[in-house]
Amino acid sequence: MLANIKYLGQRAAQQIDVDLMSIHGFAIEQLMELAGLSVAESIAAEYARGRVLLCIGPGNNGGDGLVAARHLSQYGYRPALYYPKQPQKPLYTSLLQQCRAFQIPLVQDLPAAIADCDLIVDAIFGFSFAGPPRAPFCDALDALRAADKPVVSVDIPSGWDVDEGDRGHAGLRPDMLVSLTAPKRCAEHFAGRFHYLGGRFVPPEMARDLGLPSYPGTSNCIRLS
Amino acid sequence: MLANIKYLGQRAAQQIDVDLMSIHGFAIEQLMELAGLSVAESIAAEYARGRVLLCIGPGNNGGDGLVAARHLSQYGYRPALYYPKQPQKPLYTSLLQQCRAFQIPLVQDLPAAIADCDLIVDAIFGFSFAGPPRAPFCDALDALRAADKPVVSVDIPSGWDVDEGDRGHAGLRPDMLVSLTAPKRCAEHFAGRFHYLGGRFVPPEMARDLGLPSYPGTSNCIRLS
Repeated sequence: MLANIKYLGQRAAQQIDVDLMSIHGFAIEQLMELAGLSVAESIAAEYARGRVLLCIGPGNNGGDGLVAARHLSQYGYRPALYYPKQPQKPLYTSLLQQCRAFQIPLVQDLPAAIADCDLIVDAIFGFSFAGPPRAPFCDALDALRAADKPVVSVDIPSGWDVDEGDRGHAGLRPDMLVSLTAPKRCAEHFAGRFHYLGGRFVPPEMARDLGLPSYPGTSNCIRLS
Repeated sequence: MLANIKYLGQRAAQQIDVDLMSIHGFAIEQLMELAGLSVAESIAAEYARGRVLLCIGPGNNGGDGLVAARHLSQYGYRPALYYPKQPQKPLYTSLLQQCRAFQIPLVQDLPAAIADCDLIVDAIFGFSFAGPPRAPFCDALDALRAADKPVVSVDIPSGWDVDEGDRGHAGLRPDMLVSLTAPKRCAEHFAGRFHYLGGRFVPPEMARDLGLPSYPGTSNCIRLS
């Protein structure tokens, strides 16, 4: 079944996102909620309850991370957010407000936060990213790459080219990758232990075209490899 | 743990909904997605995959039902919608558009649809309802009450008074009740087999005030009785 799964290029991934919202009527808040939920569920399937540092980028990948932080908190993890560039769009300020309601702290000192956590979530750059990374994220990537903690990347390992993978050898080397909607082409170069798929919202015709596997039962994620 | 759970009156339930959105920053699309997801998960925990007729009311309870229909379809159920009064608010037209993407049919003939299903979901009236029910829903309630199929009620058994229960003896007698956020006062009169709680989005302080139980693992629902 997995043999037929398609690895999407950057343009195809962007088009599918547009189609989900314009043709199929999904709100970004719904897609992000289900995507972030699936990231949290994937983590809960593989890592013990502990301290999770979520590194949040300025776009939708960061939004998925904010949702995941909230659900991780509900699952008994102790999340903290490193969120150096907070856009003032209502979508993101609301997601942060929700994290505040769950008493999820914001941290400023990245090296101290890395030392203090058991697991890192990389929700910095997603499938819209085109490099190279700029400040403050290039320093953050350096710090995360040097960390001796497992990294879970949301959809795209940050620093990687969406199509080509870790071309500049400056990207993260995640232990887990949670592909969202469908894996992107760079995921073929993923060499970590756990490759999951999440974002259980793809209508059946689109799922067939993308060669997506069937999720088991009521699970919001599925292990691909 | 369940001993401390509060049964909310109508006003308190409305206030909590307002607080979740205004103080804690949730969008209605997020709350509805997680609520509908929890209804679908509760059903999947107790009933075999089969044909599900979802009766959809004109408000937020109907919205929860539209979300549940989509997730049930993903779980392998065959949902159909009876949706006689479709408001033109974008929230509801979008949820219906999503159901269309999942090829969930709309049915017009309620008696035929009841005969053709294995399970009925009552997503007609929620915690904002104050009776008596008007056309076309009073006839629908009569037909559903006479049906020999199990009924799952979303948050409030339709026809019941939110505080007092089935005061007029004209309400449904559900086999399952899925309370959302927290059970409402009328749930104390529920006499069916399965009482579940869903809507896993309540911030910890509010959850403590409401005496909510802890959800197990990554589950989006919990059985109360």
